[in-house]
Amino acid sequence: MKQRRDTYNVNVGGVIIGSTEPIRIQSMTNTPTEDITATANQIKALYDSGSELVRVTVNNEKSAENIIKIKDILYKSNYILPIIGDFHYNAHTLLSSYPETAAILDKYRLNPGNVGSSNKFNDNFAEIIEIAIKNDKPIRIGGNWGSLSKQYLEDTIINGKKSDNYESLIKEGLIQSVLKSAKYAEKLGLRSDKIILSCKVSSVSQLVDVYSDIATKCKYPLHLGLTEAGMGDNAVVSSVAALSILLNKGIGDTIRVSLTPDKMGVRTKEVEVCKDILSSLNLKQFKPKVISCPGCGRTSSNYFIELTKDINNHIDNNMIEWKTKYIGVENINIAVMGCIVNGPGESRHANIGISLPGTNESPSAPVFIDGKKVTTLKGDRIRDDFIRLIEEYISKKYKKVS
Amino acid sequence: MKQRRDTYNVNVGGVIIGSTEPIRIQSMTNTPTEDITATANQIKALYDSGSELVRVTVNNEKSAENIIKIKDILYKSNYILPIIGDFHYNAHTLLSSYPETAAILDKYRLNPGNVGSSNKFNDNFAEIIEIAIKNDKPIRIGGNWGSLSKQYLEDTIINGKKSDNYESLIKEGLIQSVLKSAKYAEKLGLRSDKIILSCKVSSVSQLVDVYSDIATKCKYPLHLGLTEAGMGDNAVVSSVAALSILLNKGIGDTIRVSLTPDKMGVRTKEVEVCKDILSSLNLKQFKPKVISCPGCGRTSSNYFIELTKDINNHIDNNMIEWKTKYIGVENINIAVMGCIVNGPGESRHANIGISLPGTNESPSAPVFIDGKKVTTLKGDRIRDDFIRLIEEYISKKYKKVS
Repeated sequence: MKQRRDTYNVNVGGVIIGSTEPIRIQSMTNTPTEDITATANQIKALYDSGSELVRVTVNNEKSAENIIKIKDILYKSNYILPIIGDFHYNAHTLLSSYPETAAILDKYRLNPGNVGSSNKFNDNFAEIIEIAIKNDKPIRIGGNWGSLSKQYLEDTIINGKKSDNYESLIKEGLIQSVLKSAKYAEKLGLRSDKIILSCKVSSVSQLVDVYSDIATKCKYPLHLGLTEAGMGDNAVVSSVAALSILLNKGIGDTIRVSLTPDKMGVRTKEVEVCKDILSSLNLKQFKPKVISCPGCGRTSSNYFIELTKDINNHIDNNMIEWKTKYIGVENINIAVMGCIVNGPGESRHANIGISLPGTNESPSAPVFIDGKKVTTLKGDRIRDDFIRLIEEYISKKYKKVS
Repeated sequence: MKQRRDTYNVNVGGVIIGSTEPIRIQSMTNTPTEDITATANQIKALYDSGSELVRVTVNNEKSAENIIKIKDILYKSNYILPIIGDFHYNAHTLLSSYPETAAILDKYRLNPGNVGSSNKFNDNFAEIIEIAIKNDKPIRIGGNWGSLSKQYLEDTIINGKKSDNYESLIKEGLIQSVLKSAKYAEKLGLRSDKIILSCKVSSVSQLVDVYSDIATKCKYPLHLGLTEAGMGDNAVVSSVAALSILLNKGIGDTIRVSLTPDKMGVRTKEVEVCKDILSSLNLKQFKPKVISCPGCGRTSSNYFIELTKDINNHIDNNMIEWKTKYIGVENINIAVMGCIVNGPGESRHANIGISLPGTNESPSAPVFIDGKKVTTLKGDRIRDDFIRLIEEYISKKYKKVS
């Protein structure tokens, strides 16, 4: 993995986004901001599942007004996290009509394609930036190829004033629109360390190109996300592919995974995927890892599958308590292996591992702790004994929370 | 995406693996090879779901004997695909005792860690390679850190004969074991274009390191896979992260995703993940892509989620038939968008896209075809009308199978 690209550090309501800090996970509500209770509840659920910042749409007067009440509910229930307002078309009017909202939001997300048509852009944008400066707020200049300025599209693609191909023009247009807006914001007096950029497209290869390019052109932190990834497994796979490739290049300071949920109101899946990405790249661990083999014609029964499930369930059921008791317990690696081929070896590499017998092997299961064989389990009690050994290992290995 | 790393082309039972060819998907059965019917059925299911090659364990005499019968069932039911034998410990004895099996298998997978202890390795390995040469078969030299030679582990890590850290020693040991074995196989007379290599570990970052390194050290095609990824979503995420990073660097000629299944006998999920990886990286398309937004407080109802589901279902229900009728139908991009922010733009970029109304927008849904607005749908018939437009588009755009 490449070293993180060097960026400014941007303080978003107490959470720093930038290259010296961990990569931050964020998400966005899909409840109507008009509905205060539903929105506050969803923010809590997202935060509880691991979203360090949450964005909400501020699309009309009612929702602008509600931000204050939502923040208040969160504060009173001890949910202290940055809330980002997502604006399109009317950011300038809403932020000036609702100064308290402007003062209480932790970041404003602007889309340069939706700030105003060409003759209105400068004035509207300046109005927003002045409010940001006055309130000492950071902004995200969040471009999206789905809302690239109509003027640009007409000039370049429709009227063909440039000779490049469609895809290059889109990529260039997107990058230029956010960089120009950032430059203009700085000219208006916004500090460099108050700006985060994003350039979202819905194709993995284009996203990799766009971010690899913009990464070399500025020092602003980058908000990374594949937009409109779709629904279901292939949406997850596309998002993981895009984000992993870029994070592995050291690009990206905060991430969001955009999944069409199965039904409205359900949102935490995208946070889970973010956590799985960071943990698989060893950028941050959230819970113990269970390494288990895929099984093959050599693994003799369902037993190793059942044991893997049991260990995963045991972790899920105990993680909240473990976290309150043991420092660093999320870093443990557990191996559950189904036969002798890679079983003892993989178990040796884990903190604690068990190698179950495959077909025709003797019915005993050696257990390895930190690379050394410590015991051999047999018979009906393998599951309970192995769980007990995991518990013992955790209580010995990890420092108690004082 | 970087250009594919240049490799030899290896012919595996008619399927060429190498840099001038598409990246091949493969999988491995988890039925006992003793069970002929179950194994043949699972091979068929894997092939039907998109596995271009299938590997089966050949772990004892009975399974070696059964390979002939399994191949026969497949052949008679018109399943013509390469079958790879997975050997550990007793490859030399099984391949010499069952010459018909040696002749009918399309590739032998050997694990250098399990060919024989140090004084037996050379003889056993030579015996296998002679059989491969005689039968004109390719081999995979498949190393796995879970079965790295005990001698090596003892010399380097346990007795500390080298000063590097544990992780580097494992990586170096794994790479050296497969490269040395390949060199020895060539010395014994096996042609260079009969060898495929793999070096599997269970950590994403280590896998990226190992493959990035070995990619520069040889011209053999590489079989790519994260071993022992585990169970559930985070196993999928780790596999996708690892494989995407490497494929994006041009590394990898055939892929396998190793997932612990929910129950024995179920195996096609890993093939689905392989397809999603290749499709998300634009390396190969398998079915139409549905781009849909994640929804937010601005999307007014569940309608766009339901429409996205309906379109996905419509594709799943019709794809088999479409494939028999239209050439290239798998390349179509469909957009289902929930509001005006990125809706019209993203729909314009798709082959066919619909932009549904968000909160407070007029209740009409413009449809775009190849970048141009063609109609506006309204009311109860939006779903049916949009599906009809998709069907019309496909029948006009894609050449009929003659």
